[in-house]
Amino acid sequence: MSIRNARHPFYDFCDEALAGIREQGRYRTFTPLAREASRYPVYEEELPNTDIGREVVVWSSNDYLGMGVEPEVCEAAISAIREHGAGAGGTRNIAGTSPLHKALETELAALHGKEAGLLFVSGYVSNQASLQTILTSMPGWICFSDRLNHASMIAGIKGARGSTTVIYEHNDLADLEAKLVAAPVDAPKLIAFESVYSMDGDISDIAGTCALARKYNALTYIDEVHAVGLYGEHGGGVTERDGVAAQVDIIEGTLAKGFGVHGGYITASAQIVDYLRSTASGFIFTTSLPPSVVAAALASVKMVRAQNWRREKMFERVETFRAKMRSAGVPFTMTPSHIVPVPVGDAERCKVISQRLLNEYGVYATPINYPTVPHGTERLRLTPGPYHTDEMMDDMVAALKILLTEVPLAATGTTQALTEAA
Amino acid sequence: MSIRNARHPFYDFCDEALAGIREQGRYRTFTPLAREASRYPVYEEELPNTDIGREVVVWSSNDYLGMGVEPEVCEAAISAIREHGAGAGGTRNIAGTSPLHKALETELAALHGKEAGLLFVSGYVSNQASLQTILTSMPGWICFSDRLNHASMIAGIKGARGSTTVIYEHNDLADLEAKLVAAPVDAPKLIAFESVYSMDGDISDIAGTCALARKYNALTYIDEVHAVGLYGEHGGGVTERDGVAAQVDIIEGTLAKGFGVHGGYITASAQIVDYLRSTASGFIFTTSLPPSVVAAALASVKMVRAQNWRREKMFERVETFRAKMRSAGVPFTMTPSHIVPVPVGDAERCKVISQRLLNEYGVYATPINYPTVPHGTERLRLTPGPYHTDEMMDDMVAALKILLTEVPLAATGTTQALTEAA
Repeated sequence: MSIRNARHPFYDFCDEALAGIREQGRYRTFTPLAREASRYPVYEEELPNTDIGREVVVWSSNDYLGMGVEPEVCEAAISAIREHGAGAGGTRNIAGTSPLHKALETELAALHGKEAGLLFVSGYVSNQASLQTILTSMPGWICFSDRLNHASMIAGIKGARGSTTVIYEHNDLADLEAKLVAAPVDAPKLIAFESVYSMDGDISDIAGTCALARKYNALTYIDEVHAVGLYGEHGGGVTERDGVAAQVDIIEGTLAKGFGVHGGYITASAQIVDYLRSTASGFIFTTSLPPSVVAAALASVKMVRAQNWRREKMFERVETFRAKMRSAGVPFTMTPSHIVPVPVGDAERCKVISQRLLNEYGVYATPINYPTVPHGTERLRLTPGPYHTDEMMDDMVAALKILLTEVPLAATGTTQALTEAA
Repeated sequence: MSIRNARHPFYDFCDEALAGIREQGRYRTFTPLAREASRYPVYEEELPNTDIGREVVVWSSNDYLGMGVEPEVCEAAISAIREHGAGAGGTRNIAGTSPLHKALETELAALHGKEAGLLFVSGYVSNQASLQTILTSMPGWICFSDRLNHASMIAGIKGARGSTTVIYEHNDLADLEAKLVAAPVDAPKLIAFESVYSMDGDISDIAGTCALARKYNALTYIDEVHAVGLYGEHGGGVTERDGVAAQVDIIEGTLAKGFGVHGGYITASAQIVDYLRSTASGFIFTTSLPPSVVAAALASVKMVRAQNWRREKMFERVETFRAKMRSAGVPFTMTPSHIVPVPVGDAERCKVISQRLLNEYGVYATPINYPTVPHGTERLRLTPGPYHTDEMMDDMVAALKILLTEVPLAATGTTQALTEAA
């Protein structure tokens, strides 16, 4: 089909790399799942080479509260499409700033008690662009980065040439302090960390981190993407729940998980936001979010700020699910968050269990393999939400009980260590 | 409002940097413009501190064909919201792949005659993630990059530590060849370039570039974001128009300009797409595009492939506008593309003329300043589309004629050299 230069070594390189990935059992297949907005968390799975769909209960969505199927949120998007069309038509500077963009930035700043907010096309980009821009702004930056920070933060930190990165052990404030002490007093410092770590479901000590930041004069940057909408009386995240939002310099979040829509953002002081708005390449040189996405997100944030019942319901569902798992003797990792990891231990087993859950039981739990988590800690990651019924839970627990017994563990060791005793 | 550590030097740094930007006349203000879908290119400008809106004709949108306001495109988005909700709810791997995503990737591959396609959340991310991933895949990559490549390509190229970057003069194949000759024969090579350069509106010699790529065994990567939808019998871009799509290894495009929606993509051979799908951080670790965005883009690409009239109408409108500018003696840069730059020459003049166009004449043309273009080449960038009427054109030409005379040029030199003699 092509007269391209097929002797280029990159073609063979790709073939070989893919063969290696397949051999390790971590070749990525994306299950085609169409969400049924009126029946969330029910999706329709498209069966290969047919027009037939099969009903599937999804246990892995990051739309934790189901805000993406809220009629008010959907109607806000639909109205915006009818009024303004399907896309933004340009960058923020090129006719791509609607009054909706400004209103959402103001709303997000208010949510976190900050002076200003700034939208990005995704949470990934908000982390990458913000961290990279900050860490290249002045000479000599030292970034103290939690070992388990998300790929998007790492991309921004690594992308900042000229800055130094010091990785501290995950959620280990003694290690962080030891490393802060060892750094030159005059160097500009930044501590980059998350509130809820989504793969392990643990939560950082934000107050403790901020106390160290004050002691050693470091700027603080927190990723709250798996917490906004879910924690705090108004969904402002763990920083709100713990009453420490004002102590953090930059709070980053997403509109695509707890708020159920799409896009990312930061909130901070007026001058930091204005500086990023004026200089961050990943903010400037990209088409702004469609007005419909912004309108839906704005509706969602307002509802989430005003209404507590979805958060309460979600945590009740999580507790109920854990109780059912416990009494059935199905192992899972206990976490202080809404995330329920089920350790599996190797990529192949993880994939087989996920596939059999889907094919034999009509339930979907994403297999989480390397590079998302380290080898040997492969897992299913379950996120019970307000719309998972008791019956759905009973089905899931029964299926897991059978499959975790039937499918043998190839690797051993780490799995049990991670598991709460049943 | 905050107990943050305000002695951190970054706060003062931001204040000083912003003061400098203001002094240079390039402080960024985003005009809040709400598109009226039924009257494109008419927008409503939100007037500060009022509820009053003012009608504005926009001349700077990148929704070149008006696909973002096509009823079929909007209805596709609306149906998808009603069926599937407002967001995707997860990454491609975490229940975020709907059958729509797969259908759009197939459609885009077909548009460019490639084996496979891959969606990204934006064109910026598609360039950054793809180039960075490719250029870190094997040791010793040398990337030959056109001097005027877009910021997103530069971000990907610079982000690939370990690779070498060789910048060749813009659209200068003799310089490119000289640099290819000088490089080690065995090093894996990639040539990264664009088809339509959006700020100058010129078009590269794709066949010539590909001939050099074959001669020196280099992979070719082309950014067609300002060409897809607009050039070629089916909107496949300049690669289709020139009959050279099969010679290019990787064609990158956007869904946010000619297709009027949102998102970015690449198309290439099956193994290259599969490799990027399996390894590119900016693809893997991010929520996938909402089903409604994908549905709208799919409808748009299908219409744009099947119907030529919008492309023909756009080019007729561009020619008519140039003729009107010429006969009124208003200077502009002649280009082989659909883009009509009006040289202005310094940031302050550019901003004043843009502001007066808006305030006094109700027309909007974005001021394009540094860092988007070099100092001294500041410009207004006009993009006449199928829905700009003769009357709108007459108004714009008359307003420009007055303002380009009335507002003095602070800097001199470069402006006239760039200008077509009227």
